[in-house]
Amino acid sequence: MTAPFTPTAPGLDLFAAEPFHDSGPLCTSASAPALGDTVEVRLWVPDLWHASAVALRQVRDGEPVATALERGPADGAGHWFTGEVLVHNPVTRYRFCVVGSQDPSAPSPLPYAWVTAAGVRDHDVTDAEDFTLIAHTPAPDWVADAIVYQIFPDRFARAAHSPTTADGLPDLDLPDWAEPMRWSDPASEDGHRNGVQLFGGDLDGIIEHLDHIQGLGADTVYLTPIFPAGSVHRYDASAFERVDPLLGGDDALARLSAALHERGMRLILDLTTNHTGDRHAWFQAALADPTAPERDFYLFSGDGDDYVGWLGVPSLPKLDHRAPAMRRALYEGADSVTAHWLAEPFSADGWRIDVANMTGRHGAQDLAHEVARTMRRTLGRQHWLIAEHGHDATRDLDGDGWHGTMNYAGFTRPLWAWLADPDSDLNWLGLPMSIPRLPGGAATRTLRGVNAQMPYPSRLHSQNLLSSHDTPRIRTVTGDAGRTRVALGLLACLPGVPTLFAGDELGLHGLNGEHSRTPMPWDLIDGSGPASAVTAIDHDALTTVQRSFAARAASPALRRGGIRWIAATADALVFVRTHPEGSVLIHAARTAHDAIEVPTDLLLGTVRAQNPSAALLHVGGAAWADGAGVLRLSAEGPGLSALPLTDLT
Amino acid sequence: MTAPFTPTAPGLDLFAAEPFHDSGPLCTSASAPALGDTVEVRLWVPDLWHASAVALRQVRDGEPVATALERGPADGAGHWFTGEVLVHNPVTRYRFCVVGSQDPSAPSPLPYAWVTAAGVRDHDVTDAEDFTLIAHTPAPDWVADAIVYQIFPDRFARAAHSPTTADGLPDLDLPDWAEPMRWSDPASEDGHRNGVQLFGGDLDGIIEHLDHIQGLGADTVYLTPIFPAGSVHRYDASAFERVDPLLGGDDALARLSAALHERGMRLILDLTTNHTGDRHAWFQAALADPTAPERDFYLFSGDGDDYVGWLGVPSLPKLDHRAPAMRRALYEGADSVTAHWLAEPFSADGWRIDVANMTGRHGAQDLAHEVARTMRRTLGRQHWLIAEHGHDATRDLDGDGWHGTMNYAGFTRPLWAWLADPDSDLNWLGLPMSIPRLPGGAATRTLRGVNAQMPYPSRLHSQNLLSSHDTPRIRTVTGDAGRTRVALGLLACLPGVPTLFAGDELGLHGLNGEHSRTPMPWDLIDGSGPASAVTAIDHDALTTVQRSFAARAASPALRRGGIRWIAATADALVFVRTHPEGSVLIHAARTAHDAIEVPTDLLLGTVRAQNPSAALLHVGGAAWADGAGVLRLSAEGPGLSALPLTDLT
Repeated sequence: MTAPFTPTAPGLDLFAAEPFHDSGPLCTSASAPALGDTVEVRLWVPDLWHASAVALRQVRDGEPVATALERGPADGAGHWFTGEVLVHNPVTRYRFCVVGSQDPSAPSPLPYAWVTAAGVRDHDVTDAEDFTLIAHTPAPDWVADAIVYQIFPDRFARAAHSPTTADGLPDLDLPDWAEPMRWSDPASEDGHRNGVQLFGGDLDGIIEHLDHIQGLGADTVYLTPIFPAGSVHRYDASAFERVDPLLGGDDALARLSAALHERGMRLILDLTTNHTGDRHAWFQAALADPTAPERDFYLFSGDGDDYVGWLGVPSLPKLDHRAPAMRRALYEGADSVTAHWLAEPFSADGWRIDVANMTGRHGAQDLAHEVARTMRRTLGRQHWLIAEHGHDATRDLDGDGWHGTMNYAGFTRPLWAWLADPDSDLNWLGLPMSIPRLPGGAATRTLRGVNAQMPYPSRLHSQNLLSSHDTPRIRTVTGDAGRTRVALGLLACLPGVPTLFAGDELGLHGLNGEHSRTPMPWDLIDGSGPASAVTAIDHDALTTVQRSFAARAASPALRRGGIRWIAATADALVFVRTHPEGSVLIHAARTAHDAIEVPTDLLLGTVRAQNPSAALLHVGGAAWADGAGVLRLSAEGPGLSALPLTDLT
Repeated sequence: MTAPFTPTAPGLDLFAAEPFHDSGPLCTSASAPALGDTVEVRLWVPDLWHASAVALRQVRDGEPVATALERGPADGAGHWFTGEVLVHNPVTRYRFCVVGSQDPSAPSPLPYAWVTAAGVRDHDVTDAEDFTLIAHTPAPDWVADAIVYQIFPDRFARAAHSPTTADGLPDLDLPDWAEPMRWSDPASEDGHRNGVQLFGGDLDGIIEHLDHIQGLGADTVYLTPIFPAGSVHRYDASAFERVDPLLGGDDALARLSAALHERGMRLILDLTTNHTGDRHAWFQAALADPTAPERDFYLFSGDGDDYVGWLGVPSLPKLDHRAPAMRRALYEGADSVTAHWLAEPFSADGWRIDVANMTGRHGAQDLAHEVARTMRRTLGRQHWLIAEHGHDATRDLDGDGWHGTMNYAGFTRPLWAWLADPDSDLNWLGLPMSIPRLPGGAATRTLRGVNAQMPYPSRLHSQNLLSSHDTPRIRTVTGDAGRTRVALGLLACLPGVPTLFAGDELGLHGLNGEHSRTPMPWDLIDGSGPASAVTAIDHDALTTVQRSFAARAASPALRRGGIRWIAATADALVFVRTHPEGSVLIHAARTAHDAIEVPTDLLLGTVRAQNPSAALLHVGGAAWADGAGVLRLSAEGPGLSALPLTDLT
């Protein structure tokens, strides 16, 4: 499309000159409407578009309905237009149309333009990127405010009282597969090897370090699996009914839960619904006797030993969700595993569902939505249900199942590709290439495009991750402490639930998922643990995490606001988190760059002071200057600033 | 994205320089695979991309799998890369990734690029625009070759023997609502008025003009509804069990069907599954007695007379697809209305389903896919099932229901917007604007983007329309005989089933759907009918239709080929219909334009002669010159040429 405003820098996309609507409370009167409700939505159109008409298009029962909107009050260099969307269907889609002027003396940038959740389009499009209003029961209200800390239990902390041999090895009744490790041993990069390396972290160890977690600003602990299994990652569960004794058993979980809730914190557990381990009692019964009721729990072919394993792995037999008895045992109703761990004394606050993208899917069978819906019904209204989805979750997020996803596609990967070490040799998406270094424009197109295809509440209730137990660590991806701090700042500023993988606050390195399962270097943090293999930690990263999470806690806009894209260049991303209680402009720079100039009347706000104290958050080399109606955003190096905007009016 | 080839004209999009794959038989070994099949797919990558690697990404059970591809044979200025897609799910998605070179002396246009069905993307995207392979039972094979002629029965022809009063009015036993009209009266623009204007066309009248239809090259007649109703459009059926006596009754339909099949032609009928008329026996029974079984057929609230009408129209009560008895009566199984008209002696070859987009959809209820699936099961393997969908059908086309849609969104509207009269005051999409005149780039983005979101077989089995009984006529949209001929040429050349609304071959005018329901001017065509209100017909339009349909019949590429976009400027669209038996390049110009230059080694083919006889189809002012490795496409005015390409090798 033609840019209606002369850019001040080559390669600048100035989105601020486009008509603007988002799904936040600045532009939308309700985020969780009921079926039949009417929701007020408003669109801001810059006067330089010379709009001759503006319309709202909504879809009802598959049929679009267009309504012309009246021009409302002026604001900055444009006007607001307000309309009403009838929430006629559980998923109600809408978008806007801005019609240009026929007057050649006042040229419009386009004859007409659609305003979608992915941005402005100069041509007719499908409904896939429409804004959506969702009338399903919403996620618990607390989720939008949550900050999650992810723990891989074997590698986080050993309780002070946990028995240790003279050699420094965990002195436990070890299973046959386990290879005991000293806390100071390095974690293997090899998947199988790492999976049997037992460092001996336990749940009481977590309790002893809740001050650290809470001190970061996190309020929710997410544990990867804690059930008995054939590995330390425990994604190959051998039972779902008890906590692994290696971690302290059921009692330790009850203690951890009580300790968290006493602090007003929350607990999220991890469930494998796609498969079990081959040591699971269900699978052993199914193998032993083709007529056993458990036989239907898995995908056996015939009476022999042929069955479907996850990605062909025989130790991870895939569950068959057509089996009513398995559904009831695992996730349907009050007697299920799912319900058991939500009830006292364990009182988990939600579930993260492993391999949710494949759960219930096999060939012609697709029960994924049915599984999600059934699980949601089993949960109470205060429990969070989050689906692991390594790639495209968008088609699984507008139903009445998962509240959100692990947003690798709409957060992690676009940020990695923008902030990556130019010389990185980490693999990218399993493709024959290493992580690319993309310009901000391409990163923005993914950040906008992927998230446009999920309802905004699903985005707000999804986990944003910079790393996880399944990926290299962000510090290794960026190859740079400064860019890592920019990433940590963005974790607090982009829409979604910040989810920090334990150790990222220390700038730890990790080459792949396994290698990232680093024993925490408590010796370097507070002297409270045994010596670790880590030789140094990045105290600036720790401070950045604390400040970023504090900024988020202080700002309704960062937690619950909409998002308006302002500009992108190769080296800078600029957006506003919009909120009636005060919007916040975020400028992120991956390296030094010349000033980007944004007219404040297009920004609908200004920054009242130019010293660092005016910033809600200020990291590294980002700088700003506001004057003569223009906000100038520059950087002397990698940096991020979050600036409260004062309304023009 | 950066263009890797210097454009020769301002505003030129040269897609020919992009990596290329399409879903046609040149690049895909099977279009209708079975579950479990392996399909060979190949991608052509221009050497100027300096690809360091190429990968195929396919999705299985929700999880992507990437495979590196080996470089295969050279072809023109690039190389082919071949991979295999396992059709593991009924809808299997795939796309390609081209990885750029790290060598600064041989720069790639992009660090990496995704090749999707909508084109090349410089950033990560969702799977929505992936290529798809569909393992559902395919549409009947004949559909891809079909050319449809659409008839609105009241306005097409009166049989010679049909009784007429001395005043020239139909001498029939008229229903209370009907206003008899002379064939020479103009059709009203007013919806209600037009709906009662009975001109008296009948089914035997169609039989008398089959030479005209077949002479155009059409082989399939699609009739809008023929059941008794409260209007001449008959979308308000009062019964589904018999043909309206005004049209000649059941016997006339049997005669028409026999006459068509004798010529090797086919017959498509039109069914309202969303609603009936309020005169329908079901609805009358439901109204008369709240305890009647038919009460469940509709959406009544309580015991009173409140019910849901289509778009709130009380005379069109909406059907409730939860009612098993209604489903069985209308479309489920051998005793249904759907099956009845497919059986002898009526022997219809398929159904067009009215308002399919809303059928089974109401608030929280969405049975649309279930309705489509049930209907498909009722049909034989040789029957076509096509869904009316005025807007975005894409999410309804990858199931085992509808074979295709009336492709207004992916054909009609982008062509209208490109070819529109610049001074048109026809309304656009119900928006507060008249039809825009968009440049070829914007039109191409819609042509590529909308169709990318439906499986290619669904596109090949969808109706492409320039006008219908629901729209203004193409001649009125373009405001120009030359641009109308370009549209008629494109009707034969773009993927999908050409569907010509009776009268468009004469260049007739029509301001809206009702006004377009023109009594056919047989007096001006062959002197066989009464005088009509039409004063002149466009014989060039007629010739263009005949030549275009003949070109399509002669070319496997036009009927069954893939599509490769080559270039777009404001005034020109250039694409290739790809096929191993011979690809065809189409150049369409809406007005005179300077030459677009395309290197033949990017085109993978050349045109061996420069005189008009080298063209498969040549309309208006399009011109070409081929020499020194460059094909030059220009125009002296609106025009279209379809040029068989000879391989370079």
